[in-house]
Amino acid sequence: MNLVTNLAVATVVIASGGIAYADPLPSWHDTDARERIIAFVDVVTDPASEDYVTPSDRIAVFDNDGTLWGEQPVYFQLIYAVDEVKEMAKADPSILTSEALRAAADGDFAALAEGGEKAILEVISTTHSGLSVEEFQVSVAEWLDTAKHPTTGLGYDQMTYQPMVELLSYLRDKGFKTYIVSGGGVHFMRVFAERAYGIPSEQVLGTYSETSYKLIDGQPTITKEPGIAFLDDKEGKPINIDRIIGKRPLIAGGNSDGDYAMIEWTTAGDGPRLGLIVHHTDEEREVAYDCDSHIGRLCDGLENGPDMGWLIVDMANDWSVIYTGDR
Amino acid sequence: MNLVTNLAVATVVIASGGIAYADPLPSWHDTDARERIIAFVDVVTDPASEDYVTPSDRIAVFDNDGTLWGEQPVYFQLIYAVDEVKEMAKADPSILTSEALRAAADGDFAALAEGGEKAILEVISTTHSGLSVEEFQVSVAEWLDTAKHPTTGLGYDQMTYQPMVELLSYLRDKGFKTYIVSGGGVHFMRVFAERAYGIPSEQVLGTYSETSYKLIDGQPTITKEPGIAFLDDKEGKPINIDRIIGKRPLIAGGNSDGDYAMIEWTTAGDGPRLGLIVHHTDEEREVAYDCDSHIGRLCDGLENGPDMGWLIVDMANDWSVIYTGDR
Repeated sequence: MNLVTNLAVATVVIASGGIAYADPLPSWHDTDARERIIAFVDVVTDPASEDYVTPSDRIAVFDNDGTLWGEQPVYFQLIYAVDEVKEMAKADPSILTSEALRAAADGDFAALAEGGEKAILEVISTTHSGLSVEEFQVSVAEWLDTAKHPTTGLGYDQMTYQPMVELLSYLRDKGFKTYIVSGGGVHFMRVFAERAYGIPSEQVLGTYSETSYKLIDGQPTITKEPGIAFLDDKEGKPINIDRIIGKRPLIAGGNSDGDYAMIEWTTAGDGPRLGLIVHHTDEEREVAYDCDSHIGRLCDGLENGPDMGWLIVDMANDWSVIYTGDR
Repeated sequence: MNLVTNLAVATVVIASGGIAYADPLPSWHDTDARERIIAFVDVVTDPASEDYVTPSDRIAVFDNDGTLWGEQPVYFQLIYAVDEVKEMAKADPSILTSEALRAAADGDFAALAEGGEKAILEVISTTHSGLSVEEFQVSVAEWLDTAKHPTTGLGYDQMTYQPMVELLSYLRDKGFKTYIVSGGGVHFMRVFAERAYGIPSEQVLGTYSETSYKLIDGQPTITKEPGIAFLDDKEGKPINIDRIIGKRPLIAGGNSDGDYAMIEWTTAGDGPRLGLIVHHTDEEREVAYDCDSHIGRLCDGLENGPDMGWLIVDMANDWSVIYTGDR
């Protein structure tokens, strides 16, 4: 290998290794939030710092719904499920065997909400089981290609939060492994996580359905079955991180009390840790909600978070852009 | 950044990036097995090959017991459990409330085996629950530091198979992500996987116990609880890979029929795939066993594997060294 080749390799490394000369967080206003994030990252990545952390331990975990992309007026995965019921009912109306499914076919989210968790699980189960993982993911991909959000008119994967996408990228440039740890379904999120966030499938943790392994027409097939095998919410989040990642994260970010345990566990670790809560304060550009919301309810985190040193991100004041699709 | 620094970076990259001038598999004899492995890796990593696979899809999964390290006369994790019961009984003999625990305290593996799965699960449960994950892992680490295998006299983590350790390293040099997918416990294996195999905790999949998350003396704690939450064996292996990795591997290696489904699913994928079975044929240097063994029983894989194109590695003929500790 000659000198020119060596230099070429070196240049590639410099380009991809993320020595950032430009502003790494351009959609964050110059506020305390931005400053605290950068100061934290500096202190754990500077080899001269006494709080230096080796790259293999730089784990950052983030909730998805309401933290990395929108979640109003209802979780986008439920909108997918409702749209699927509509499609299925067009092909075969006899599938509408319950009030929940009829409400879904009518796109009546209020009636669905009235039916409670049972109604929602029925809609999810009907649309998320009885097909192979590959078939399910093709269906989600097709939906993402065409479906538009009822109020923004954006494609759902354009409703990722630009400042959070920048934060993920900045952390990776600084040697972090970035993970999603979400109540959403793993098979659903993996369809867009790589493209939308740069997060590969093996770094997507979430709720997962029961699945089976069997030969179908001689082909080994993993089929999504009815029922939830693991609910990745509340205490389930640290439990799932322990099971799958096996390390306590350095950074945990969320937006609701479903993320409380994950942030609590993360920030109780030795040395500096960063707990972060995205507070939905921007009625004008998004939706303002916290303690009284039916989705993404945030009470405990707002009440105790600041005392525990967690960073409360104020979307209205800290972010210059909301959605990636707004740019 | 000046030229000298650039060159230093380039040199580090070359050293760690694994441009291998030396034999990457020195403990493999020059047989068909070695040749097939290298030919497979070449075809999926050569950008000019029509079967080229991008690095992000280069996933290689391996069983642990009997594939990456020994498993005779009984699984090493069970030996740890029995040694723990002995220790616990020394401190408090009143814990020996059952025949299974008394057999364990006597080191009587034959009596334990007679008690069947129930007896073994009781011994595992007694020693693997009621303590935090951190406490459990300290206990395993201390055991690994001092315990010796009854027949080889080696430390257990010296009983990794040197040719497989080389294979893992070779695959990583070629851009693969290497994973363990084992019936063994994740918390147990993570204590040595990084050091013994270069596999970080987040790439260790296995059986996991129930765990709880709660505050203990104000500290958020993940505690190992009685009971198995997921058994990572047989059909559980592809199911777990789908849940956690979310991609079908390119390479799957095992040694028993517990690995059959994982290898079957892997090799049924599109394009070239490598299924590999370690066949324990070396009575002189290790233990020769397959279809009649009580541990690591291998019948279906031997019968159907060759027709399915799986590589059957003959330890006696294909490996020049067995244990890492033998070198």
